[in-house]
Amino acid sequence: MAKVAVIITDLFEDSEYTKPIEAFRASGHDIIHVGLQPGQIVRGKKLGTEVKVDVTPKACPVASFDALLIPGGYSPDKLRVDEDAVEFVRQFMQSDKPVFSICHGPQILITAKVLEGRTVTGWKSIIQDIVYAGGNFVDQEFVIDKNLVSSRSPIDLPAFIEACLQKLT
Amino acid sequence: MAKVAVIITDLFEDSEYTKPIEAFRASGHDIIHVGLQPGQIVRGKKLGTEVKVDVTPKACPVASFDALLIPGGYSPDKLRVDEDAVEFVRQFMQSDKPVFSICHGPQILITAKVLEGRTVTGWKSIIQDIVYAGGNFVDQEFVIDKNLVSSRSPIDLPAFIEACLQKLT
Repeated sequence: MAKVAVIITDLFEDSEYTKPIEAFRASGHDIIHVGLQPGQIVRGKKLGTEVKVDVTPKACPVASFDALLIPGGYSPDKLRVDEDAVEFVRQFMQSDKPVFSICHGPQILITAKVLEGRTVTGWKSIIQDIVYAGGNFVDQEFVIDKNLVSSRSPIDLPAFIEACLQKLT
Repeated sequence: MAKVAVIITDLFEDSEYTKPIEAFRASGHDIIHVGLQPGQIVRGKKLGTEVKVDVTPKACPVASFDALLIPGGYSPDKLRVDEDAVEFVRQFMQSDKPVFSICHGPQILITAKVLEGRTVTGWKSIIQDIVYAGGNFVDQEFVIDKNLVSSRSPIDLPAFIEACLQKLT
């Protein structure tokens, strides 16, 4: 069973956290919440879903995990100003361990400068950001490019979750 | 006296709207709220400041205005998925009329593909986006590059407003 890091802070898109997590746990995987302050309660932007942060990115090396989930909403915008969070994501991408990104998730991948030459999708507001970052944007419900699985929005969740679960087996 | 378009939608950073508008009006300038639906009430993200949208970008040509203000917060993220809003901002930049951008404001300039070779500042989360878009990011309280005046955050508002007012005289 896999240990999945979820990098998360306030204003995450509720369903992009709750639905994948529910499916990952149902398949026996462990979830560790990585955020800006251990013990902090962060909240979703639409439903106010509460999540308790377990560890900071600095306190837990990428080697401790098997995969990374980046929920969307405005959480990635807040995480990408934190150097440790960006470095954590960069190391994940370089490790070739699965990285699951949805909606605004690619924003932190852009700050980590790991999108060049990668095929990826995400929320439509950030398409030009992805293109300028050297990414190959595709408008599909999910895309798999080596270790990176990405989707556009909550509508894509069923396909996204299925693709993620296949990477975790 | 100038006619200033404010392009705005939900989750704008309250003070990045209220403070410049207050100063512009005190100097005798007119404010027109440009948004996604005429008559819509949009709200600020911290204080819930209410703003009524006057016109859509399509209904009002850039020729009707003398300057453009782009408040930050998450309003630019929502506006940049609207083609008419992006085209409105692009035409403003190309018209050489003053464009005032603060915080996340450059996000819509990126989607409009008008930042290449321009010197600009903005909120720290979008620095890499600006760099990838060909912008020359500078970490200053305000920057003037031809018609574009930009600042980083609410802390910069006094300097930002002064620079904007000078462009309106």
